[in-house]
Amino acid sequence: MKNITILGAGRSASSLINYLIERAPKNGWHITVGEYNLELAKEKTKGLDCASAIFFDVHDEKQRQQVVQKADIIISMLPAYMHTMIARECVQYGKHMLTASYVSKEMEELHEEAQKKGVLLLNEIGLDPGIDHMSAMKMIEQAKSNGYELEAFESFTGGLLAPESENNPWKYKFTWNPRNVVIAGHGGAVKFRHNGRYKYIPYHKLFRRTELIDIEGYGRFEGYANRDSLSYVDKYGLQGIPTIYRGTLRRPGFCRAWDAFVQLGATDDSYIMEGSEDMTYRDFINSFLAYNAHDSVELKLMYYLKLDQDSDVIEKLHSLNIFSNTKVGIKNATPAQILQKILEESWTLDPNDKDMIVMHHKVKYKKEGELYLHTADMVIQGEDAIETAMSKTVGLPIAVATELLLEGKISLTGVQIPVKKEIYLPVLDKLEPMGVRFIEKEVKLASELPVM
Amino acid sequence: MKNITILGAGRSASSLINYLIERAPKNGWHITVGEYNLELAKEKTKGLDCASAIFFDVHDEKQRQQVVQKADIIISMLPAYMHTMIARECVQYGKHMLTASYVSKEMEELHEEAQKKGVLLLNEIGLDPGIDHMSAMKMIEQAKSNGYELEAFESFTGGLLAPESENNPWKYKFTWNPRNVVIAGHGGAVKFRHNGRYKYIPYHKLFRRTELIDIEGYGRFEGYANRDSLSYVDKYGLQGIPTIYRGTLRRPGFCRAWDAFVQLGATDDSYIMEGSEDMTYRDFINSFLAYNAHDSVELKLMYYLKLDQDSDVIEKLHSLNIFSNTKVGIKNATPAQILQKILEESWTLDPNDKDMIVMHHKVKYKKEGELYLHTADMVIQGEDAIETAMSKTVGLPIAVATELLLEGKISLTGVQIPVKKEIYLPVLDKLEPMGVRFIEKEVKLASELPVM
Repeated sequence: MKNITILGAGRSASSLINYLIERAPKNGWHITVGEYNLELAKEKTKGLDCASAIFFDVHDEKQRQQVVQKADIIISMLPAYMHTMIARECVQYGKHMLTASYVSKEMEELHEEAQKKGVLLLNEIGLDPGIDHMSAMKMIEQAKSNGYELEAFESFTGGLLAPESENNPWKYKFTWNPRNVVIAGHGGAVKFRHNGRYKYIPYHKLFRRTELIDIEGYGRFEGYANRDSLSYVDKYGLQGIPTIYRGTLRRPGFCRAWDAFVQLGATDDSYIMEGSEDMTYRDFINSFLAYNAHDSVELKLMYYLKLDQDSDVIEKLHSLNIFSNTKVGIKNATPAQILQKILEESWTLDPNDKDMIVMHHKVKYKKEGELYLHTADMVIQGEDAIETAMSKTVGLPIAVATELLLEGKISLTGVQIPVKKEIYLPVLDKLEPMGVRFIEKEVKLASELPVM
Repeated sequence: MKNITILGAGRSASSLINYLIERAPKNGWHITVGEYNLELAKEKTKGLDCASAIFFDVHDEKQRQQVVQKADIIISMLPAYMHTMIARECVQYGKHMLTASYVSKEMEELHEEAQKKGVLLLNEIGLDPGIDHMSAMKMIEQAKSNGYELEAFESFTGGLLAPESENNPWKYKFTWNPRNVVIAGHGGAVKFRHNGRYKYIPYHKLFRRTELIDIEGYGRFEGYANRDSLSYVDKYGLQGIPTIYRGTLRRPGFCRAWDAFVQLGATDDSYIMEGSEDMTYRDFINSFLAYNAHDSVELKLMYYLKLDQDSDVIEKLHSLNIFSNTKVGIKNATPAQILQKILEESWTLDPNDKDMIVMHHKVKYKKEGELYLHTADMVIQGEDAIETAMSKTVGLPIAVATELLLEGKISLTGVQIPVKKEIYLPVLDKLEPMGVRFIEKEVKLASELPVM
């Protein structure tokens, strides 16, 4: 009997727990779900024999030790900053651990000790980060092993709505942490490389420097740059590649309208607004516009941002009721927190809404002196507002990797992310029948057009 | 014999040292100038009997103690972060101290102990902060004591060029710390109050929200908002005032052109640019523009920022040689550091250039039911690139306050700024014959025009 312990049973843990519970009896697994909210854990374990729900408080050191000691393998679905608290116990008691979060500095520091103890701390094995790493590395290493010269790597992911659920002018609703959507791009200039040149985009220009991308069968999307493209040079072994760019996908028009909030300063998370609790949505918008005794907030906004009254940006802004007299009702809130509240009222999934994950990779290389473009597209739709594509694509890679570890098919140790063949090939193989499928194409590129 | 010790003999200390040396023999003062660069101190003390130059290392604790013990009063013209190291010794040995810098948190913490020891730590007694505090408080307290109801306080200061030296398209050169000019407005949204409403401006809009100001005899200026207007509510006793706004003055057109750098991201000081040493000015600008194999950097910039080829913004940018192939030559530089280098080549005072300080206050109040506007303007011009108005207006208030302290005319103790009558009235009186003169006006305001 192997004991798999999952800590945290939030939204993204459902598919993961279901996958493991389904296969538990056959494999002789016992699934323990630890949650601070015990009811939530009970809901997920459904009173089954092969599973138990326990109360778990990450700040209780004794319990942390007990839980880790009893487990054969630990999955942490807790908020990212809690992972290292668990990871330290895992190293001490010699247990493997998996997370879907980015490797923090504190996590990285555990690498050597984990290796010594023969422990694997496998991170970034969800969707993004996760499936993006694995599918990208497969393309990159394939091209390398064929001896092709890499010219460009570009990659885009979006957590969006299925076309049938695109029922607001933004064609967007929250399918993941809303706060991360509101503050996306904060924390420093965007950096990437284009044809050998380093390029930098300041936050206030980020949503005006988009790129259009067509996905067969799903139409057109737009991508804006992620902050950290350059850090993928080392992660993916792309030293010296002339172009590297990672981005986030939205439907066309989203970024142009979102830029209105950026220009106003409404996404700022660095200061508290005076009197936020009693402020209306209209006051909120007005606080970013110059005082004027006579003009309406609507007119001042259109003039300030140079927007036409009948533009699609204005339509999108109106759809969020930003000019209404609804009270904000949050004490000591930052602009970003207030904006999040406004957006949540319009951008929360209806029970029957389906989400959609879109991933798009482009690898350019030289093969026998000619330039080729290799693309890979993945599109996955959810079932409804609970069984989302997001929760599926975050949870299943962890579940599958856990299975492979228990089967003894992964022997890596230390702090890892899934960029090594030993992990990504078997994980991708297991994910494919569950719909994580990439449509791949290779086309020969024409030489560039002459300058006119 | 009273020993006045001045620590730091940089640019801004000249007028201060000269003022005190001139009056030393008559008053029985001895002036000690302590500098890490001993030659500089010797230059300033000119081998006079009433003055001595000493080597001074602020990081040498023993020397710090000796120097403070020997002095009757200490003036710190060192970089701001060094003041508290001196201030702690001053409190310990019971010596008064003056600085022209903002009160830091660490300085503030010395308040109670300084009071106990009967020591005055007088800060913000230069130009801005300094003369601005004193002249504003005089207007504000005058209105209050007359029983007027305060409606608005606005204040602007600029370190500019005398009209005859406005010999570049920006009508601007550095007359103070260039770095502070480049990063002006960094570090959070601008906050102020206008007719009872809190207003916020994000950094990337700051230089597009300007206000025009006419100063009789000197023409038109534009003002952009300082970051911290709200902190002056308490400093100046303006609780409940509907409008409070502090700003910085430039000649019209400066801000619109400066905004080009802001929009590019060229004022960012938060990251290091790859290969900054070997980069040319042209590369620097190009790194903020999208890659394109065919178009020139000039065209890409004009298109990106929507600038006409014959616009004054383009003329201003060209005057800085930003499209040239001059090497940056600074290792591991941030965009702000590179921009500063580019600007210093064009914005350094020629030996005969004269600078000019402009200060403009507006106080609105209700007097017998009618609205009045009280304005006060100060303009001071420098002699040349050494005897600047900046150095004069920063140094003389400190010198004069030192004199008053030695004459026993100020009895305040603790950490103070010059917002109390006991300080600002005698200091302003002594400054007036030296040219620190405000032209004041009071006009009755017409009631507002009807809405059209």
